[in-house]
Amino acid sequence: MVEQRLAEMGFTLENPPEPIGNYEAAVISGKMLYISGQLPLSDGKLVYQGQVGSELTVSEGYRAAELAAVNVLAQIKKKVGGLDRLVRIVRVDGHISSSDDFIDHPKVLDGASDLFKKALGEKSGHARTVFGHGRLPKNAAIELVVIAEIR
Amino acid sequence: MVEQRLAEMGFTLENPPEPIGNYEAAVISGKMLYISGQLPLSDGKLVYQGQVGSELTVSEGYRAAELAAVNVLAQIKKKVGGLDRLVRIVRVDGHISSSDDFIDHPKVLDGASDLFKKALGEKSGHARTVFGHGRLPKNAAIELVVIAEIR
Amino acid sequence: MVEQRLAEMGFTLENPPEPIGNYEAAVISGKMLYISGQLPLSDGKLVYQGQVGSELTVSEGYRAAELAAVNVLAQIKKKVGGLDRLVRIVRVDGHISSSDDFIDHPKVLDGASDLFKKALGEKSGHARTVFGHGRLPKNAAIELVVIAEIR
Repeated sequence: MVEQRLAEMGFTLENPPEPIGNYEAAVISGKMLYISGQLPLSDGKLVYQGQVGSELTVSEGYRAAELAAVNVLAQIKKKVGGLDRLVRIVRVDGHISSSDDFIDHPKVLDGASDLFKKALGEKSGHARTVFGHGRLPKNAAIELVVIAEIR
Repeated sequence: MVEQRLAEMGFTLENPPEPIGNYEAAVISGKMLYISGQLPLSDGKLVYQGQVGSELTVSEGYRAAELAAVNVLAQIKKKVGGLDRLVRIVRVDGHISSSDDFIDHPKVLDGASDLFKKALGEKSGHARTVFGHGRLPKNAAIELVVIAEIR
Repeated sequence: MVEQRLAEMGFTLENPPEPIGNYEAAVISGKMLYISGQLPLSDGKLVYQGQVGSELTVSEGYRAAELAAVNVLAQIKKKVGGLDRLVRIVRVDGHISSSDDFIDHPKVLDGASDLFKKALGEKSGHARTVFGHGRLPKNAAIELVVIAEIR
């Protein structure tokens, strides 16, 4: 069970972040679920802020990616009423707040890919891309954009 | 009527920007319409240039987002012959040219989300993500990437 | 024949880069093929590194985009067993490592759009967007994210 595996890692899927503005946390179009960009928030608090490389270590960035991935799963659960309808994670874009000399972005995004693998097993296999940004909204360390397939 | 509501806001959907290169302004695949990144152009002129935070205010960025959103609607109209075939805006990615200490990107992108809401009502509800970039093509203040569902 | 045209340009579609981590090089969902971000790699070596504008010329950036586009085609070939099942390139996002005063990103991404056009002809018509980033993973000059339609 996905939620049990997450609980063993110390995560729950309760109360994902609400959108602040004229948009939605997640939108279904056909079999595709488009999830708004998720930040490393917990209980409404931005846990990981700042640039990886200068203000945060790669380890902290990895954990930020993990937490953002948990919020992705929480949004999926909220939108479709559980994770049973999830066919697979299709695409993950990881946007990393990072200094201009930082080039280890993939090691940071591994936090999200590894969490999806541990929690979802076969359903976790996604295409992914990772980018560096000078600064992200609210000074978040990472922003995760996911497309999933549902049934 | 969408175009009437836009006209009251001072916008028309005529002559959206043409692609400059071996690509297309919009592509249909199944029920999905993928629109090339739209800049805050009006009559072929880039109205909002520069970084929000250092060179432009949040208000100017908001209006830049609004104008880019108008161009998105103009591209949809041109591609499918009007807005009647639009089922909904599915996903909006807002890329904001912004200084490295700027963190209020969501307030800028609200210009696009609010315009979609005013013009389209129920059809406007989209998943969205917002990013900061040090510099965008042609020094545009914002670049808007939209996926829409059509019938 | 696509591969013959590529060969005349000096490119082959052998051995596309393997994913390094818990993700996949390409994922199929329905008729859509999502390809992980491709870098300007050849035989496992990153050929074009650094920022366009300060460390690389626009010409070098153009050739980097061309090479990343070849890797996209190699990934498609590997995933679906050839290019016959490719209906079209649907969307191309070009992320350019570039200095903060660089604004000619479209001229760089033309390297990818032109290659797709030469190799694929009618199947190449895509929506596209181009961005600037201060630094990309592994110090790549460009990262190319593509969605394609397959049969």
